[in-house]
Amino acid sequence: MTQATTHPPSGSTATTATYDTLIGRVVEANLLGSTASILSWDQETMMPPGGVDHRSRQLGLLARLNHQMETDPMIGEELGLCEADTAFMNSGSIEASNVREIRRTYDRATKLPQRLVSELAEVSGKSQHEWAAARKESDFARFRPWLERLVKLNREKAACLGVPTGGEPWDALADLYEPGCTAAGVTEVFTPLRERLRKLIAELLAGSRKPSNRFNETELAVDVQSAFVRTIVESIGFDFQRGRLDTSTHPFCGGSHCDDVRMTTRYTPTCLNDALGSSMHEAGHGIYEQGLTRSAIGTPAGEAVSLGIHESQSRLWENQVGRSRQFWNWCAPKMAGFFGKSVEGFTPEDLYAAANVVEPGFIRVDADEATYNMHVMIRFELERLLISGALDPKDLPGEWNRRYLEYLGVKVPDDRRGCLQDVHWSMGAFGYFPTYTLGTLYSAQFFEAAKRAIPGLEAGFARGEFRPLREWLNKEIHAHGRRYSPSELCVRVTGAPLSSACYLNYLEGKLRPLYGA
Amino acid sequence: MTQATTHPPSGSTATTATYDTLIGRVVEANLLGSTASILSWDQETMMPPGGVDHRSRQLGLLARLNHQMETDPMIGEELGLCEADTAFMNSGSIEASNVREIRRTYDRATKLPQRLVSELAEVSGKSQHEWAAARKESDFARFRPWLERLVKLNREKAACLGVPTGGEPWDALADLYEPGCTAAGVTEVFTPLRERLRKLIAELLAGSRKPSNRFNETELAVDVQSAFVRTIVESIGFDFQRGRLDTSTHPFCGGSHCDDVRMTTRYTPTCLNDALGSSMHEAGHGIYEQGLTRSAIGTPAGEAVSLGIHESQSRLWENQVGRSRQFWNWCAPKMAGFFGKSVEGFTPEDLYAAANVVEPGFIRVDADEATYNMHVMIRFELERLLISGALDPKDLPGEWNRRYLEYLGVKVPDDRRGCLQDVHWSMGAFGYFPTYTLGTLYSAQFFEAAKRAIPGLEAGFARGEFRPLREWLNKEIHAHGRRYSPSELCVRVTGAPLSSACYLNYLEGKLRPLYGA
Repeated sequence: MTQATTHPPSGSTATTATYDTLIGRVVEANLLGSTASILSWDQETMMPPGGVDHRSRQLGLLARLNHQMETDPMIGEELGLCEADTAFMNSGSIEASNVREIRRTYDRATKLPQRLVSELAEVSGKSQHEWAAARKESDFARFRPWLERLVKLNREKAACLGVPTGGEPWDALADLYEPGCTAAGVTEVFTPLRERLRKLIAELLAGSRKPSNRFNETELAVDVQSAFVRTIVESIGFDFQRGRLDTSTHPFCGGSHCDDVRMTTRYTPTCLNDALGSSMHEAGHGIYEQGLTRSAIGTPAGEAVSLGIHESQSRLWENQVGRSRQFWNWCAPKMAGFFGKSVEGFTPEDLYAAANVVEPGFIRVDADEATYNMHVMIRFELERLLISGALDPKDLPGEWNRRYLEYLGVKVPDDRRGCLQDVHWSMGAFGYFPTYTLGTLYSAQFFEAAKRAIPGLEAGFARGEFRPLREWLNKEIHAHGRRYSPSELCVRVTGAPLSSACYLNYLEGKLRPLYGA
Repeated sequence: MTQATTHPPSGSTATTATYDTLIGRVVEANLLGSTASILSWDQETMMPPGGVDHRSRQLGLLARLNHQMETDPMIGEELGLCEADTAFMNSGSIEASNVREIRRTYDRATKLPQRLVSELAEVSGKSQHEWAAARKESDFARFRPWLERLVKLNREKAACLGVPTGGEPWDALADLYEPGCTAAGVTEVFTPLRERLRKLIAELLAGSRKPSNRFNETELAVDVQSAFVRTIVESIGFDFQRGRLDTSTHPFCGGSHCDDVRMTTRYTPTCLNDALGSSMHEAGHGIYEQGLTRSAIGTPAGEAVSLGIHESQSRLWENQVGRSRQFWNWCAPKMAGFFGKSVEGFTPEDLYAAANVVEPGFIRVDADEATYNMHVMIRFELERLLISGALDPKDLPGEWNRRYLEYLGVKVPDDRRGCLQDVHWSMGAFGYFPTYTLGTLYSAQFFEAAKRAIPGLEAGFARGEFRPLREWLNKEIHAHGRRYSPSELCVRVTGAPLSSACYLNYLEGKLRPLYGA
């Protein structure tokens, strides 16, 4: 018998066999999870109204079966055997990183008592319902008891998951979405960002020019918008042989695996940029998913690494590409072909400017690039205080409104357009919001690296050449799955840890000339 | 403690508790099964091509988990306890019939060894693939070894299920689709039917008139056809708040439960009657599904009784309604609103005649009402011989072609348009075909009963009044679920066991005048 083994590259043959069995279990749990993803997509896009109750029962059952599979004690036993083989674990192989990541998922699933998981599911289900009603009536008092319960349950959840040494309970929750994310680390990045953004926004609003918003008020037929948007996302590289684009109330990207990616968008007759921006955003998520490794489906090596890195891909295609001058030079003549007379008289420069209008407002999802992250930072600060216990839920609206006035200079008119606008907390998702801004910062830092690696990258956009960027992202980011942590990946790809420098340079470099600021 | 119990109406309290636990298990297995139904629908309507392989793995896993749930020994134990309570079982209650039907399903699932189930699934998966290729090339030799394996496996399956006393192996297979169905019983109904149909077809073809086929060759825009067909199926009672109509290669009706019914159709630009007929057919299935009892979802009382009864509902709306003179009197002015000039010059009578053109052909799914059942009878005769061993698979094409010449007077040009045309046998489905004709016969017998019960029923169609029929079908058939066997249901609803008399009267009464025969 020779020493040559290709899989795994190190470790004993016993470990190899154990590893294969372990992977079989994980792939099967994931296969079941992927059926729930299709049902969730169906619920938002296709399901008739009558299907609601039964669908929640279907998803509840699948979640329970999935949890049983994920917490199978055999997984724990096999993980232990693999981990005991130090040669295997220190090999730097994909297999070793898979074991590390399976351990993360397994520990998380087994640390939470079934009672807490059920209670969280039940309370957040009811709470979303109450939140929707409370938002409609702008009635914070109605939502308050639910917020209180969810904060309490999430503090309990954080305690079960375990607070990292020197950390705080919020960290344990954030780690679920962004491995390694801590409140201290986020604060270190966010604090200088907030000050620079506040200064930039003030400068832009006091600038000598203002981009015209006229294009964003031009009515265009929704069916033509739909055909146009499809062409654009196909051009940037979303593969319709392995995915779909449908319509839903809130755009999202879901699906089952890399060869069946389901994304959605929404259309407003008076603003093509709504549909185009959201479609390019979701296509960024979709291209990441389609770029994952087919042979690793169902294993960590075939999964996206974190929400922040996922968001970096959507932001990059939405903003660094879709809000660039070169993109609009390519896009403008295409638009003429679809919309004819309705878009006559808009130069590529007009369209570029219209895609970059800055206007502080109350609503996060409507925000422009300059103000968007202020919305996220406010949420981060408040949820950190809620989870630490320093902020009583009853004081949320006051603290929310005070910060909006301070950071964005806007007076929130009511809680519907204030602290009740987002679904996240009502779903019990604390620690999620910062991934939006982390993703935005990653996107700019990745894009800088791409520009260094690909000569003439942006000039190519004007000729519709998006493939070099997509292939670079695929090689540098998508193909790795969860092999590296988000921060390791950032250093590998860009040569430096995450900072807000690239993002601020990008934003200032683009917006100041447009605003004469 | 009082004696009053409402649920179940008889039997001890211990039985009640056991029954409730049993029902809980059955409902859960059904809930998982209903997720697979949505994935199957998605596969035919929405899934991008890249999703094929993963989808078959998802469905394989769900089938395995479902089989585990259905064969849980606790179900057997609880069934035994309920069955031992004779007061309970003899109560004539819904609960007693549920226990009887759960026993049917459980015995069937447990009688088949796992090895045979897996082998059948694997062979029929590959076989369908080979069949599709063989059909394309009209190459029976390529399909023959698969047919041989499937016949062999199905004979083994029949032996495991148990052949009824005095019966034959085919009966055990047919019982899966149509409870109580036997080859002898089918033959008793089919033999006189075949002779009368052969005579009728000859008379029609020799008649003094021939309805014009011109409308069936009129090109109509597919998007307008789609809007029109939607209006029609909604008018006859399909509820779009609790269902969908999409497009697929082969029309079908699926979905998850009575409040989420998914049906499909297909469009040919040159023949509205293709889309209209298939949509009304599937809407008949859909209205049955939507008419099942919501509170009984997942239990036998909330499920369709058999394929034959299901088919009776689709045929009834497709034929007794959709090919009636009164329907076309109502439909013609509606069509003018949708298709304008393109349908000018067609009188309601022309449209009625065009929907009733008779023309013997090779292809079952393209057949008219008069010749359709001949196609089915040929298949029944041949599969009965295959399963009994009296027909060697190698002789199938010859026997097929001989019967087509004898029964329909047509010379089959090749196996693609002959014995390779249908998917059923390649899926391992033997005993399925007769349900098409049984359903057709049931439809006519049910319709006669409806006419007796509802004065002016057909005259109402001319005014778009379909609700009386739908409500009658709901009350008499849908609402019972699997409470009665198909033959019991037939006697309850029509006062007589199934025969071909009503159908032949209906067909002759309609077609002879149109053909001057």
